[in-house]
Amino acid sequence: MPGNSIGQLFRITTFGESHGGAVGCVVDGCPSGIKITEAEIQKEMDRRKPGQSHVTTPRAETDEISILSGVYEGVTTGTPILLLAHNKDIRPEDYNELKKLYRPGHADYTYQQKYGVRDWRGSGRASARETLARVAAGAIAKKYLAKKNIEIFSYVQQVGNIKANIDYKSVDIEQIESNIVRCPDEETAKQMIRLIEEVKADNDSVGGIIFGVIKNCPVGLGEPVFDKLSADLGKAMLSINAVKGFEIGSGFSSVSMRGSQHNDEFYVDETGNIKTKTNYAGGVLGGISTGEDIYFRVAIKPVSTISKPQKTIDLDNEEVELEATGRHDPCVLPRAIPIVDAMSALVVMDHYLRHNI
Amino acid sequence: MPGNSIGQLFRITTFGESHGGAVGCVVDGCPSGIKITEAEIQKEMDRRKPGQSHVTTPRAETDEISILSGVYEGVTTGTPILLLAHNKDIRPEDYNELKKLYRPGHADYTYQQKYGVRDWRGSGRASARETLARVAAGAIAKKYLAKKNIEIFSYVQQVGNIKANIDYKSVDIEQIESNIVRCPDEETAKQMIRLIEEVKADNDSVGGIIFGVIKNCPVGLGEPVFDKLSADLGKAMLSINAVKGFEIGSGFSSVSMRGSQHNDEFYVDETGNIKTKTNYAGGVLGGISTGEDIYFRVAIKPVSTISKPQKTIDLDNEEVELEATGRHDPCVLPRAIPIVDAMSALVVMDHYLRHNI
Amino acid sequence: MPGNSIGQLFRITTFGESHGGAVGCVVDGCPSGIKITEAEIQKEMDRRKPGQSHVTTPRAETDEISILSGVYEGVTTGTPILLLAHNKDIRPEDYNELKKLYRPGHADYTYQQKYGVRDWRGSGRASARETLARVAAGAIAKKYLAKKNIEIFSYVQQVGNIKANIDYKSVDIEQIESNIVRCPDEETAKQMIRLIEEVKADNDSVGGIIFGVIKNCPVGLGEPVFDKLSADLGKAMLSINAVKGFEIGSGFSSVSMRGSQHNDEFYVDETGNIKTKTNYAGGVLGGISTGEDIYFRVAIKPVSTISKPQKTIDLDNEEVELEATGRHDPCVLPRAIPIVDAMSALVVMDHYLRHNI
Amino acid sequence: MPGNSIGQLFRITTFGESHGGAVGCVVDGCPSGIKITEAEIQKEMDRRKPGQSHVTTPRAETDEISILSGVYEGVTTGTPILLLAHNKDIRPEDYNELKKLYRPGHADYTYQQKYGVRDWRGSGRASARETLARVAAGAIAKKYLAKKNIEIFSYVQQVGNIKANIDYKSVDIEQIESNIVRCPDEETAKQMIRLIEEVKADNDSVGGIIFGVIKNCPVGLGEPVFDKLSADLGKAMLSINAVKGFEIGSGFSSVSMRGSQHNDEFYVDETGNIKTKTNYAGGVLGGISTGEDIYFRVAIKPVSTISKPQKTIDLDNEEVELEATGRHDPCVLPRAIPIVDAMSALVVMDHYLRHNI
Repeated sequence: MPGNSIGQLFRITTFGESHGGAVGCVVDGCPSGIKITEAEIQKEMDRRKPGQSHVTTPRAETDEISILSGVYEGVTTGTPILLLAHNKDIRPEDYNELKKLYRPGHADYTYQQKYGVRDWRGSGRASARETLARVAAGAIAKKYLAKKNIEIFSYVQQVGNIKANIDYKSVDIEQIESNIVRCPDEETAKQMIRLIEEVKADNDSVGGIIFGVIKNCPVGLGEPVFDKLSADLGKAMLSINAVKGFEIGSGFSSVSMRGSQHNDEFYVDETGNIKTKTNYAGGVLGGISTGEDIYFRVAIKPVSTISKPQKTIDLDNEEVELEATGRHDPCVLPRAIPIVDAMSALVVMDHYLRHNI
Repeated sequence: MPGNSIGQLFRITTFGESHGGAVGCVVDGCPSGIKITEAEIQKEMDRRKPGQSHVTTPRAETDEISILSGVYEGVTTGTPILLLAHNKDIRPEDYNELKKLYRPGHADYTYQQKYGVRDWRGSGRASARETLARVAAGAIAKKYLAKKNIEIFSYVQQVGNIKANIDYKSVDIEQIESNIVRCPDEETAKQMIRLIEEVKADNDSVGGIIFGVIKNCPVGLGEPVFDKLSADLGKAMLSINAVKGFEIGSGFSSVSMRGSQHNDEFYVDETGNIKTKTNYAGGVLGGISTGEDIYFRVAIKPVSTISKPQKTIDLDNEEVELEATGRHDPCVLPRAIPIVDAMSALVVMDHYLRHNI
Repeated sequence: MPGNSIGQLFRITTFGESHGGAVGCVVDGCPSGIKITEAEIQKEMDRRKPGQSHVTTPRAETDEISILSGVYEGVTTGTPILLLAHNKDIRPEDYNELKKLYRPGHADYTYQQKYGVRDWRGSGRASARETLARVAAGAIAKKYLAKKNIEIFSYVQQVGNIKANIDYKSVDIEQIESNIVRCPDEETAKQMIRLIEEVKADNDSVGGIIFGVIKNCPVGLGEPVFDKLSADLGKAMLSINAVKGFEIGSGFSSVSMRGSQHNDEFYVDETGNIKTKTNYAGGVLGGISTGEDIYFRVAIKPVSTISKPQKTIDLDNEEVELEATGRHDPCVLPRAIPIVDAMSALVVMDHYLRHNI
Repeated sequence: MPGNSIGQLFRITTFGESHGGAVGCVVDGCPSGIKITEAEIQKEMDRRKPGQSHVTTPRAETDEISILSGVYEGVTTGTPILLLAHNKDIRPEDYNELKKLYRPGHADYTYQQKYGVRDWRGSGRASARETLARVAAGAIAKKYLAKKNIEIFSYVQQVGNIKANIDYKSVDIEQIESNIVRCPDEETAKQMIRLIEEVKADNDSVGGIIFGVIKNCPVGLGEPVFDKLSADLGKAMLSINAVKGFEIGSGFSSVSMRGSQHNDEFYVDETGNIKTKTNYAGGVLGGISTGEDIYFRVAIKPVSTISKPQKTIDLDNEEVELEATGRHDPCVLPRAIPIVDAMSALVVMDHYLRHNI
């Protein structure tokens, strides 16, 4: 099975290069009867779009999404949904000098070796522009899950070494959207913005950590033994450009704990529901959701495109100096928030359907 | 697609409960012409088997593997390979008291909720005993990959807060196998063993970190955009019982770096090969292998089964106290090493075939 | 994805060679809570087993099925079910002379070319013995579907040129099982038996046609556009050894009709259900079940193994004469009935689950 | 896995309704380095397009195909290829009266029952317009296979009861394209055309049989046991609208033969190649290609849309009379030829890649 699809029952197949004709996806397996409009999808798209603030890339892609099949009179029909955005801001001349060399940290070299040919304009298929398709499909999944009362959000927890010390339980989506860096702690957000400005002024880039949350996920989602909910969330996040790590619940910090501390004790709450007193598990036991909050962290490396001069080699194996002139993000995390949300929604939606057969 | 299979072209489907008739897997898609014997597979099985040292569980399962199809006169025929181990050490009475309650940290509750029924003996399908099938299948993949010069190993880097400060490049497999905790740094290994002994005496358990390595992986493995090599490795590791986190290359530490530091500079070495000066990427760019070493870290939580008394609830939602009497590992990391190796081998094997169509 | 699996949600993966250690399958995706015993499965196995009458092969394989996982206390647990029959009647010396030549009509040549190696004993993986696994898995599906009131059966409609002129609507399973050739028309059955006896005496073999029926299939099963119920039934039947053709409803005879004749007129019956006056469609429109009876025909070629001398070539490309001495069926149709039923059940079960997500 | 995809390694996912925004497909898994232009694809599209002669529908859809991703500078890049045709001839008012009733022989009823909602304009997703995506993708596969010397064609063998008595071995593609009915026997073609004219004048429709051929297919394609080449070809053909039957090689006529007749004798030809003297198998043994010609027959029912008045019911279960006014084909076979060719190409391409891993 080729690699451009994700999901078993709610399955998306993305297509498109940064500077080709169009970017988008086919959503296959979407239940019929979901009300969805282009405007609702566009709202999520706009959270991802370039040029939304001075801490993101100044590229002015509009990324207008069209629904070209699978929706009739505003309702999904159970047939494949084509979501498509034509590429408009095509300035391949920006990339002309990149045609013949391998940019450090980018996939130029690996694509060239794997395929023997590549669309080098703006990273081609390896461009993060591909993720707009994920966000579009994720908007449909989010709509469906919201009807089931499942809430999905994420926020920037850390940029460089600046970390927000907040409890995800106190965070709401308005707070996240209240500033351009999408960190719900206002004070930390300001520091993050300052850091990004500095890094940008220095022609450099910086990474960070996104904290993701899924609330009200019913018990029972996840398929043992390989398609554990945690494993599929991990894969989904690790499939996003620039992601280098994923941890769920206690994650890497679990190694300092003893079993007697880490085991989340079961109890019955006042309404008769089974709950756990702590939630080090992060809402998943044996790969299956427990009904507790699912929370996880995603590590994103500093953006590979920088304006600082860098040494590299060209297609003739000659050493060359690269001075990137393309318009890029000094820090992708603010724009990665809707992508993380979309991947959460796609995974939970798929497992929701898989569990309810 | 149900969840008990992994791999697209080299595909295993595991089956079996801890105390049912048998545990094993079908390996479908294995190329014909590979020489393999039960003894070779058994060697890997023995690295995983219980009772191998005083820091592991004293259960004396022999885990003898049989090849029941797909291999004729010592050679794979291209047809499905059935690998099977009958369950022998069946003492369900050990688990009788567990029948009616949900152990904290275990999958008892989630399986019961998901399926409405469960084989409660020794964790049933959620038992780590399932992983013996992975190790058996992984032995075939390792054999195949070794012929391609691809080397796979892993070691215990950390137990609790005791961490080995070693460079993976200096590690060889003999060092790893030279002590019962499978940490190649002898001095740290001793400290780890002491810690495990203490934890065991305290009727508790402890987690840790496994460092995994894949050497000589050719350029080009991994399928954009969802089936990135890094994403599939992450999923494979996160599908192992008790794993809470995965990071590749610089992982979570990348967030403290600038793009100018993190970008691995390309150069041409004296033999004309394209290399990178650093390898923060961990051998994968854009989800495709670069030819550099692939290295990653896997976080494993403390074992859920402990002998300390714990509060929990039973199937009637009544509070009860649980005092585990089953025989268990105070720390699973030494026995998890062959499992991590197997998952690496299964993922690389699958992507090797996928790349070479 | 390798080729030894069928089904998306109710998925079986078969393994095993005719004279290897075992033959069987893993059933993954079986819903939990189905009561099933080895005895119930064995009953279907016995309809397929060799040596059941003088018109089948005299090989005395007992084909005893064991359930080795996925069923606990007589109930499916939602985990993979291993169904396995050890091979007992192993007389490879019967096949020694076949080791080095390609039997006409058999898969010896194609397996050898495809894999470069093959288990030549009793046709190895290409043996119809593989179908016992399908029958075993099909027994579980039939049990599940029977609870949904879905009835599945098939019968021998034609052997050689002897054809039963009966209406499937008047046929019941007892009639089918009332004679050794499994043709519900007693008079025709006698003629068929006589023909098979003649063919057997002549050291030859004969084919025929099986008529398959699925009753009370609910409206809505089948997934457009490629996984039409009719297409998946066709594939399932064409995957059975020796099958050369499949037609549903009016099938090939539809070409002599006009649209005005062939279109099945809708009406509302006395109980308010939507029905069609005729059913040329065979219970499927646009690939989706209509609620009317599904009926189809399967063409089976004469058995390739015959005792008549035949010319062929050996592995050194030399011409040789082959005189088969193995024990074989002069006509496989009576034993193919449970296989056709099993494939119907597997396809309908899978689509039942797919439709009800 | 939803039902709108076919193929494992060369995988297409089609989308689009008859009167929605667009129809097309994503081709995932296409090898890089194939030269392909829109014009080459359009050539195949034009063989399928409506209005090409007086024996087809007069609808004047232009069906202009665009490549929107996956091809750069005229060469495939290994990334997903989006093939898309915008819908132009949108006259939904033609279908207004069909909105509220179930046309006999059509999928209106089954879609409505399955999904609870449907795009009723021009059959929506069930329209044969979906097949244009198959033809477009098939053009790429045909291009690839032609480089491997594999030749694919089909022709109309029978319309109603008029049958061409010709040997497929003597047929070439020019003959097929030499007349509007695509029957290579000129005399029979004239009779077929006359019959279609009569049927059309009578406001009725007629079906027929397509004979398909794949030449120079190498030995070894097809994956035992379920993904036999013959089974996958059967499924592919049965997934085409209006197809009711499929047979390969001797097919249904094999039942009148004895094994001694039907077994194709192996011999070594003058150039040292292994051949069979006859080819009743139709180029496939044990589900694997033999290297002989693959040939098969596809039965197509008379078109369901006719202008004759028909009785049926509406969405309120009331009896109504339907008088179709839409523009339709009296016989789809001439336009189905490129569809059958495309499905052959898609299946062979997929198995070519699967065999050559």
